[in-house]
Amino acid sequence: MAETRKLRMGMVGGGPGAFIGPVHRMAAELDGRIEMVAGAFSSSPEKSRAAGVSFHIDSARAYAGYEDMLGAEKQRQDGIDFVVIATPNHLHLPVAKAALAAGIPVVSDKPATATYEEALELERLVKASGLPYGLTHTYAGYALVRDARAICASGELGAIRKVSVEYLQGWLSEPLELTGQKQASWRSDPAQNGPGGCIGDIGTHAFHLVEYMTGLDVTALHATLRSVVPGRRVDDDCTALLKLSNGADGVLMASQIAAGEGNGLRIRVYGEKASLHWQQETPNTLQLRRNSGPDETRHAGMAYLNHAARAVTRLPGGHPEGYLEAFAVLYREFAIALEAWRSDRLDVLPDTLPGIRAGVRGMRFIERAIESNKTGAWVDF
Amino acid sequence: MAETRKLRMGMVGGGPGAFIGPVHRMAAELDGRIEMVAGAFSSSPEKSRAAGVSFHIDSARAYAGYEDMLGAEKQRQDGIDFVVIATPNHLHLPVAKAALAAGIPVVSDKPATATYEEALELERLVKASGLPYGLTHTYAGYALVRDARAICASGELGAIRKVSVEYLQGWLSEPLELTGQKQASWRSDPAQNGPGGCIGDIGTHAFHLVEYMTGLDVTALHATLRSVVPGRRVDDDCTALLKLSNGADGVLMASQIAAGEGNGLRIRVYGEKASLHWQQETPNTLQLRRNSGPDETRHAGMAYLNHAARAVTRLPGGHPEGYLEAFAVLYREFAIALEAWRSDRLDVLPDTLPGIRAGVRGMRFIERAIESNKTGAWVDF
Amino acid sequence: MAETRKLRMGMVGGGPGAFIGPVHRMAAELDGRIEMVAGAFSSSPEKSRAAGVSFHIDSARAYAGYEDMLGAEKQRQDGIDFVVIATPNHLHLPVAKAALAAGIPVVSDKPATATYEEALELERLVKASGLPYGLTHTYAGYALVRDARAICASGELGAIRKVSVEYLQGWLSEPLELTGQKQASWRSDPAQNGPGGCIGDIGTHAFHLVEYMTGLDVTALHATLRSVVPGRRVDDDCTALLKLSNGADGVLMASQIAAGEGNGLRIRVYGEKASLHWQQETPNTLQLRRNSGPDETRHAGMAYLNHAARAVTRLPGGHPEGYLEAFAVLYREFAIALEAWRSDRLDVLPDTLPGIRAGVRGMRFIERAIESNKTGAWVDF
Amino acid sequence: MAETRKLRMGMVGGGPGAFIGPVHRMAAELDGRIEMVAGAFSSSPEKSRAAGVSFHIDSARAYAGYEDMLGAEKQRQDGIDFVVIATPNHLHLPVAKAALAAGIPVVSDKPATATYEEALELERLVKASGLPYGLTHTYAGYALVRDARAICASGELGAIRKVSVEYLQGWLSEPLELTGQKQASWRSDPAQNGPGGCIGDIGTHAFHLVEYMTGLDVTALHATLRSVVPGRRVDDDCTALLKLSNGADGVLMASQIAAGEGNGLRIRVYGEKASLHWQQETPNTLQLRRNSGPDETRHAGMAYLNHAARAVTRLPGGHPEGYLEAFAVLYREFAIALEAWRSDRLDVLPDTLPGIRAGVRGMRFIERAIESNKTGAWVDF
Repeated sequence: MAETRKLRMGMVGGGPGAFIGPVHRMAAELDGRIEMVAGAFSSSPEKSRAAGVSFHIDSARAYAGYEDMLGAEKQRQDGIDFVVIATPNHLHLPVAKAALAAGIPVVSDKPATATYEEALELERLVKASGLPYGLTHTYAGYALVRDARAICASGELGAIRKVSVEYLQGWLSEPLELTGQKQASWRSDPAQNGPGGCIGDIGTHAFHLVEYMTGLDVTALHATLRSVVPGRRVDDDCTALLKLSNGADGVLMASQIAAGEGNGLRIRVYGEKASLHWQQETPNTLQLRRNSGPDETRHAGMAYLNHAARAVTRLPGGHPEGYLEAFAVLYREFAIALEAWRSDRLDVLPDTLPGIRAGVRGMRFIERAIESNKTGAWVDF
Repeated sequence: MAETRKLRMGMVGGGPGAFIGPVHRMAAELDGRIEMVAGAFSSSPEKSRAAGVSFHIDSARAYAGYEDMLGAEKQRQDGIDFVVIATPNHLHLPVAKAALAAGIPVVSDKPATATYEEALELERLVKASGLPYGLTHTYAGYALVRDARAICASGELGAIRKVSVEYLQGWLSEPLELTGQKQASWRSDPAQNGPGGCIGDIGTHAFHLVEYMTGLDVTALHATLRSVVPGRRVDDDCTALLKLSNGADGVLMASQIAAGEGNGLRIRVYGEKASLHWQQETPNTLQLRRNSGPDETRHAGMAYLNHAARAVTRLPGGHPEGYLEAFAVLYREFAIALEAWRSDRLDVLPDTLPGIRAGVRGMRFIERAIESNKTGAWVDF
Repeated sequence: MAETRKLRMGMVGGGPGAFIGPVHRMAAELDGRIEMVAGAFSSSPEKSRAAGVSFHIDSARAYAGYEDMLGAEKQRQDGIDFVVIATPNHLHLPVAKAALAAGIPVVSDKPATATYEEALELERLVKASGLPYGLTHTYAGYALVRDARAICASGELGAIRKVSVEYLQGWLSEPLELTGQKQASWRSDPAQNGPGGCIGDIGTHAFHLVEYMTGLDVTALHATLRSVVPGRRVDDDCTALLKLSNGADGVLMASQIAAGEGNGLRIRVYGEKASLHWQQETPNTLQLRRNSGPDETRHAGMAYLNHAARAVTRLPGGHPEGYLEAFAVLYREFAIALEAWRSDRLDVLPDTLPGIRAGVRGMRFIERAIESNKTGAWVDF
Repeated sequence: MAETRKLRMGMVGGGPGAFIGPVHRMAAELDGRIEMVAGAFSSSPEKSRAAGVSFHIDSARAYAGYEDMLGAEKQRQDGIDFVVIATPNHLHLPVAKAALAAGIPVVSDKPATATYEEALELERLVKASGLPYGLTHTYAGYALVRDARAICASGELGAIRKVSVEYLQGWLSEPLELTGQKQASWRSDPAQNGPGGCIGDIGTHAFHLVEYMTGLDVTALHATLRSVVPGRRVDDDCTALLKLSNGADGVLMASQIAAGEGNGLRIRVYGEKASLHWQQETPNTLQLRRNSGPDETRHAGMAYLNHAARAVTRLPGGHPEGYLEAFAVLYREFAIALEAWRSDRLDVLPDTLPGIRAGVRGMRFIERAIESNKTGAWVDF
C-alpha cells in the first residue's frame, strides 16, 4: 500500500452565518480523504480571514475573492486539488467558470446555476474541460436511497406506475426574510437565488430524487407555484404533476410554509408488485411493501442490503448515520473520480455521483415549472 | 328513566359475499340502541333467507325485494323504523326513493347515488319528505377526526393554507375483476358503480374528509384520472388539485393500484401556525405540529381532547377503537336524529352526521373530476 | 341453513359507573350470536333497573341480585343461556358458584377469583359441573396475538430464549382512590380486589399473555412489588423475573404509576433465529425481526397471516379492529363452546379461549409474586 | 480571533479489521478541532504502517507499539497532544498508565479498564496526574440525551419513580466467536475482555446512561447473567434490578442474543408527573409523556430544546445527526477541557463529558453484577 496524501480542497463561500459552508467542510473531511486547506469564504477580507481561523487553516490561504484564491493556489506546490462552491446561487456559474478555466475540478452546491441558460453554458464548459464536476444533491448519498435505486433497477417492483415525492418545510411560514435572517434573505431575493424560490431551493432536490431513485426521466409537468406569505417575492409552495418516461405518473409537493414540518423529504415509488417508502428524517430505514406479503423494513448497515447501499455505510446496523454522512458519500465519490482523472484512467464520474447532467435537469425543472405555472398548462420537459 | 325500545332497522343489500352488509349490522347495533330485524339482502329469495338466518332474524322478515320489505314492514306493529341501503351504487337512488315515499327514514352507504343528477333528485326528495337521511362516510366517525375538526374550527392553526389528503389502496393492482371477485366486479362495472371507479369508491371519502375536517368547501379542481391496469373500464388512480373556499390549496391522491397499501387514508392540514396529521390505519392518534414547539400526539379517550372527540369514544385512553366503532358513531347520531324527528322536536340531523348535502357534494366531486380529466383544465365546483 | 336463535346472556355487575359492563355487552353482541336479555347490574334494585333501561332490556329482567336472576331465569322458557360476571373480584367466586350450581355456563372477567385458594375451589367446581367456563383475558382475542402464537408454535423463531412483557399504565400516579373515583377505589381495596393491586389487575394479563403466546409455562419467579404512591394499600408497581419451562428467561414489568402511559401492554419474544414484537395500543401489526433479513411487519386482515389469525378478523386489511373486537373474539369462541356443549358434541372449550386453567394459573401468579416479594427470593411456581 | 492550530491526536489500537478505530478518527476530526497525526495501530509493524497509510498519516508516525509512540512523539515539536485508546479492554490500563506517566492526556474507549481493581488504580493515577481524561460513553453525546438530562434536573418530571433501560443486540445469537470474527472473538475471551461479556460490553453503556440522564446513582442491584449460546465463555444476556439513590427502582436488560435487534439502546424515565422515552436507533427525537396532556415529541436542532441540547447540534431541525456526531460531541468537549488545561485555567473536564468517575462506576457495576449473579441476592453498590 503506497502512501498517498489527502486531496486538498478550497472553498468559495461558507463564511460567517453560512449554514452550508461548515457542512461541506465536515462532509468533505469525514472519510479522511480530503482536507480543506484554503477558502474565499467572504468578499470581506476580514470576514474571510475570521472564517479561516475558525476552520484552523493557514491565514495566508483565507482569500477575499475566488479569483485570488484560484490564482494564488495555482502557484503553490501544495495548492488546492479542487474547489467547492458554497455561495448563493447567482455565483455558482461565475465561480465554476473561473475554476474550470484554471483547470481546477469543481464540487458545487445545488442548484448548479441561477438559471437554465446558465446551466446549459456550464454544461458546455464542463464537457469541454474534461474536468470532474460534482453536484451535492445530498440526499443521493443516503445508503437507503442507494438501496431503493438498486431495487428499482432490479425490476423487483415490476414496472413503476406512480411516484409521490414531497419536500415539506415550515421555517418560512412567516416572512423571515424581513427580519434579516441570512438564510431566508438570499433565498427570497430573485437576484441572488434565481427566479424560483421553494421550487429551486428544495423542489429540485425532490425532482432529482425521483429521477435518481427510479432511473426514469420526467418528460412533462404541470406545476402550480404560490407565494403564500404576503409580500414574499418568490414562490414558497409548489405542486407539480409529473409524467415519467415509462408512462408512469408522479406528484411532487414542495413547500416552505408547511407549518410544523422540519425537513420532510419523503418519497414513495409504486410498482406493479410492490412499493418503496423512504423519509429523510428517518433515513436509516426503507420500507418495501407488497400486496402479497408482510411489509419489509430494511435497515442501513445490514448484510442483506444491495451492494450499492452496503458500499456507502461506515457503521454496523443500528448505529445511525445522518445528513453529514450522506453528504460525505458524495465527497468520497468525487475523490474517487478525481483520483481517476489525475491518473488518466477515467474521465467520468462514478454514475452514483450527481454531476452536470443532474445540474442541467434541475435547472430545466425550475424553468419548466415556472412556465407551466404561468400558462396553467402541461409543458413538455 | 323511562323504558325505551331499541330502534328497528331493515337492510337492503348486504347478502352473501358482501363486505359492507355485516359491517352495517355490527356498527348499527354496537351501542345497543338499534337492532336489525328485517332485510332484503338479495334479489334471490333463497339467498336473502340464508342471509337472514345468518343474522338470526325472523325468516319471515328476510325479503326478496326492498319493495316487499317496505310494504310488509309498514303493516307490522313492530315494523322497521328505518332502512339502511348497502347495495351497489346504482340501486341507492331507487331504494332511497321508495323508502322516503313510504315515509321511512334512510341511512345510505356512500356515494349517495350513481350520478350527480340522481343526487340532485334525491336531495329534492329528502328535503321534501322532512325525513332523516344519513350517509355513512365512515371516517367522519373517528374520535380524532372530530378532534381535528374542532381544532380547525377553533382557529388554533391560524388560517388554513394547504391540505394534503390521500387514499391509497393496492388491492386492484391486478385485474381482480376478471377473476369474478365480487367486490372488484361491481366496482369496475360502470353500470353498477356509476361512471367513476376509484374516484367514486374512495376519492369521495378523501374529498369528504377535507371538507368535513377543515370546514372549508372545495371551489375548483383540476383532476387526472387514469386506468392503469390494462383492460380496466373505470379509473383506478386519480390526482386532483383543489382550491378551497378560503383560498387555500389542496392536493388529493386516490389510488387502488398503489401496491402494498392497505386502506391508506391520510390527511394533513397546514395552517399559518401549526398542522394536523391523521392516518386512518392508526386512527387513535392525531399529531399537531408547530414551528414553535414540540410535536403533540393526541390520544383517543383522553380528557384533554375537544368535547366533540370525547363525546364519541366508548373506552379509556389506550384501548383502541377501530373502523366499526367509527361507523357506529354515525349510527348513534342517526339514532339521535331519528328520536328527535319522532318526537317532533327537531327536523334536522346533528351537524356531525354526514347527510344529503355531503351526498350531493360527493357526487358533484366525481362529476367535476371526470369533466376536468376530459378537458385537462381547471373546473369550477 | 336451519334457523337458530341468538344465545341469551345475563350479566352480574356492570351497573352505573362501571367500565367493564358495557364493554362485555358490546363485545358479546358484536358478532350477532349473543344478546343480553337480563342482568343483576347492582345490588340496589333501582340502580339495577336503571341500568336495564339504559341497556333496553325488559325491566322485569333487571334483577337486584344474582340469586334472584338465576332463580327467575331458570323458570322462563326464554331464560338466559349463560351468565357473565363483571363484578369486583371478591364476587367472582360466589357468583360463579351459584351459576354452576344452577347448571348455567359462565363467562367471567379476570382474575378468576380473589385468591388462589378460591381459584382452586372454582377449578374443582367447573370440572365437576362439566359446564363451559370462559375467562376474558381480552388480549388473547387480538388477531395478531393469535398470529404470534402460531408463529411460536411453528418453530419459526427457533427455541425461545427470552421474553420481555410489560404492562404500563399511568392513571394511578396520584392517589385517585382518595377522590372516590370508582375504578380506583375498589381496585385499591384488598377486601374487594384481593391481596394484589397492580399485580392482579394488569400483571395477570401480562403473565397470561406470556404463557398464551409462547406456549410455555412459567416455572419460577422473583418478584418485587412496590406501593409507590404514599398511602396506597396495594402494590402499584411490580417487576418479576421469570423462568420458563424450556429454560428461557422472562422479565415482566407491570405498573400503574408509569406517568404518561395509557394501556401499554407490550410483549417481545426472542428465539434463536428471530423475534416477535407486539403492542396492544397498535394491535393490528406484529413485527417479526430476524438477524438475517429485513424486519417484517404483519398486518391484521391479510391473507399471509396464519389461519388462527385470519379466523378472528372481521374486516379487510387496513380497517383497524380494536379492543372491543378482540373481546368479541372470546365471546364468539364461548358461543361455539356453548353450542357444542348444548348439542353434546363436545365438553371442552376451544383451546384458543382462556378457561379455568388460565384462571388458576393467574391466581397462582399473584400468590407467588406476593410470596417472592415477601421473602426477596426466587419461588417455584 | 487569534489563529490556533488543531489539536494532535495519536491512536493506540484501531488497526485493520477494527470497528472502533476509524470511528474514533472520524469523530475526533468532525468538528475541525482535532487531527489524527500518529498511531500505534497494531503490534505488527507492517499492519500498523498499513493502517497509517489508510489514514493518510506520515508513515514515520505509524508506530508498532504505544511505548514507541509516546517516546517518539514527546521528542517532536509537533508531537501529539493526547492519546486515544481504542484497543481491547485488557490494554486500557497499561496504555493509559504509560500516557499519564508521559504527561499526555487520555481519551479512552469504554470500559475504562478490564477489572474493577484496575479502575481504582487508574482513578488514582488520573487524579494524581491532574491530566484530562475522557471516557467515550458515546450515547452521552446525543443531543436528546442532553435534553433529557436537563429535563430530569429541572424537576419537570417530579421525583423519578422508575427507570427502564435496555440494550438489546442480536449479533451474538450464534457462536460467532468460533468463526474467528474479530469483534466477537476478543469480546468472548475473558483474558482480553475482562470477566464480563455482554454486561461489560453494552451493559455498562446502559448503566451509564441511567446515571447520566437521571443524575441519580445506583445504590444496589440484583443481577442475573446468562451464557445462552452453548460454549460461550462469557455472559451474553443480563437482567439487573436497580435501586437508585432517591429510592426509585430500575430495570436494566442487556442482551447480545436478542435475535433481530440491531443496537437497541432504549431508556424510559418515569417521574411523578411525566415520563421520558428515548431510543438510540432514532436518536433525534425524545418523547415526553404526561398523564394530563398530549405526548410531546421533541426534535433535535429545534430552538425549544434545553440549552444543553442545542449546544451540541450542528444542523438545523430535520437534518439527522447520528452516532458519529454524538461521538464527536465527546471529542469536542475533551478538546475544550484540553485547551483549558493547557492554559492553566481549569483542571477539570466539563461535567457533560464522562470521565474517570464514570469509568470506575462502570467497572464497579460489572463487578457487582457478577457478584450478585453468583450469590443470587441483592448487593450494595
